[in-house]
Amino acid sequence: MAQSTSSSNVPQFTSDGQLVLPANYREWVFLSSGLGMTYGPTAGTVPNPTPIFDNVFVAPAAYQSFLKTGKWPEKTVLVLENRSSATKGSINKAGQYQNDLVGVQVEVKDSSRFEGNGWAFFALGKGNSGPMIPRTATCYSCHPANGAVDNTFVQFYPTLLAIAKEKGTLNPTYLAAPNQAH
Amino acid sequence: MAQSTSSSNVPQFTSDGQLVLPANYREWVFLSSGLGMTYGPTAGTVPNPTPIFDNVFVAPAAYQSFLKTGKWPEKTVLVLENRSSATKGSINKAGQYQNDLVGVQVEVKDSSRFEGNGWAFFALGKGNSGPMIPRTATCYSCHPANGAVDNTFVQFYPTLLAIAKEKGTLNPTYLAAPNQAH
Repeated sequence: MAQSTSSSNVPQFTSDGQLVLPANYREWVFLSSGLGMTYGPTAGTVPNPTPIFDNVFVAPAAYQSFLKTGKWPEKTVLVLENRSSATKGSINKAGQYQNDLVGVQVEVKDSSRFEGNGWAFFALGKGNSGPMIPRTATCYSCHPANGAVDNTFVQFYPTLLAIAKEKGTLNPTYLAAPNQAH
Repeated sequence: MAQSTSSSNVPQFTSDGQLVLPANYREWVFLSSGLGMTYGPTAGTVPNPTPIFDNVFVAPAAYQSFLKTGKWPEKTVLVLENRSSATKGSINKAGQYQNDLVGVQVEVKDSSRFEGNGWAFFALGKGNSGPMIPRTATCYSCHPANGAVDNTFVQFYPTLLAIAKEKGTLNPTYLAAPNQAH
């Protein structure tokens, strides 16, 4: 857990093509968290009484590259960690804090390995590795259509959104959208 | 912003005793985030429609020490960053994502500088430095009385709570409390 090798900055795969969970991703750079974020229609639904937190971490080397260029380099690895929320615990009375791990998804940019725009998604659950999410999943259409930078939702990472604005790397489709995140 | 010097792992003070904001704290180790967490009584209050997110970061050297010992070393610096929350933005329809910086508070352990248990709190707001919070503030009584480890709310940092349990470093008062975080 305390190890921090340079190789852990880039995606690692098993012999059958599964992505290996970066062992030290909790020591990577935190981009942001959300609670119960919902992209689909909400009409007719009731608020979830126990919404899920998501934390996003990126490999340090890719983060440093983004600070300089406003873009993600090849071999970028982004980890999306989902955790349950709780309200009543210790002295907390209202609001939500983070609790148990629910599962992990990972987004990887590797044009030498993946077709299309070079990005792929992996579902790891609570495991140490996991398979690529099938190309038919909505993440493969939603991310390039709605992400603020390349294939990623930089509009929800406030410190990086400022960098992307400064570097002029926001996607034209994001800039043309009627309702930006900020 | 991209710098990462060893000196940034320890508290830095101005000549008049203000704490200097660690320039690269967003590259430190993320411990957890909460939304609208409330320690006081909630009876008779209405839910806040725009609750505040808090993110907690710790200097990497102190984090590595905690992994090994379950305790915080001298010179530990913890940064509490508050950010506004938003719901409607880009394609998000429900739940909350993080938005503008509201302000920063910092907790420091330095027994050579601070009396009592060696911990002190600083209010930086959006500035690059800020004064020590007066000893009469509730943080100085609440943290040692209710924190799970030393002067800190490790019960709300799920990955560190597991370490503290394993190392046997949970405070007796926390272990005796009727309602633990987990």
